[in-house]
Amino acid sequence: MFGCLVAGRLVQAAPQQVAEDKFVFDLPDYENINHVVVFMLGTIPFPDGMGGSVYFCYPDQNGMAVWQLLGFVTNEKPSAIFKISGLKSGKGSQHPFGAMNLPQTPTVAQIGISVELLESLAQQTPVASAAVSSVDSFTEFTQKMLDNFYNFASSFAVTQAQMTPNPSEAFIPANVVLKW
Amino acid sequence: MFGCLVAGRLVQAAPQQVAEDKFVFDLPDYENINHVVVFMLGTIPFPDGMGGSVYFCYPDQNGMAVWQLLGFVTNEKPSAIFKISGLKSGKGSQHPFGAMNLPQTPTVAQIGISVELLESLAQQTPVASAAVSSVDSFTEFTQKMLDNFYNFASSFAVTQAQMTPNPSEAFIPANVVLKW
Repeated sequence: MFGCLVAGRLVQAAPQQVAEDKFVFDLPDYENINHVVVFMLGTIPFPDGMGGSVYFCYPDQNGMAVWQLLGFVTNEKPSAIFKISGLKSGKGSQHPFGAMNLPQTPTVAQIGISVELLESLAQQTPVASAAVSSVDSFTEFTQKMLDNFYNFASSFAVTQAQMTPNPSEAFIPANVVLKW
Repeated sequence: MFGCLVAGRLVQAAPQQVAEDKFVFDLPDYENINHVVVFMLGTIPFPDGMGGSVYFCYPDQNGMAVWQLLGFVTNEKPSAIFKISGLKSGKGSQHPFGAMNLPQTPTVAQIGISVELLESLAQQTPVASAAVSSVDSFTEFTQKMLDNFYNFASSFAVTQAQMTPNPSEAFIPANVVLKW
């Protein structure tokens, strides 16, 4: 029913079914993974009114599983790309894999898919940093970074009257930074 | 041999084989596509010493096919994610699909895969904006952008001795920009 693809590696199309409605893919060497694609194979759709919540699970320093909600796949949106690099510093979220005690190996993470009612999915909020889907988010990110830079650089701005004499230090007019 | 997945849509695993060594996937409604995943199905590897160059093809205003090199898949790196939104303003590049005259429909683009010698692939340069694969490339991209910014801003740099008197204009010490 599901496939999983780590960017740069071979596709996986045979998840472990850990419960009637729960599927798990192993992600070996997950610290070297940036993006993961989760998709429906197109063979079996979700039952009417159902969809899948997609979780990333990694072992914390004590070997305990930390689960984070990445997003969803549904019959209407049967695939999604998620960025998992950088998630490890985040907090775990509520998840439906609690009782499963998946064995945790230090370098192996998991993708878990839980088949649930669409109404239930609609009440869940994925971690924001996992979304890789639109130009907007990339543009926003870049813009935010540049805004941060301008705020940072501006905090050092001086006028000529405030300058201590040092003829060799180079200065950049602040409006040049803004225009760029 | 190949699969293609538009983020948010169903996977495609049956490209049109337009020549012995050339495969094409159609991308309907391509103006609403941000990311495309191209991957080997894992059934048949490339012959020794061969790999695939991955092209994006879209119709220009006159309905002529414009081809852009996105990147590569190989037995060692059998999948890749490409960002195709934003490519439309770019220029076409040299490509091996020239004689094929694929029919162009205004809203349909293509992904073309050409099986070639690895040595030949190594001499080809993909469009930079298509890479979505690693933190490294993203970091490199950001670094490059900041380098560009520093070069741009530095071209306006002045020392105090060169300043025309204007006590209200704000200046940012150039080393602040570098440190950031």
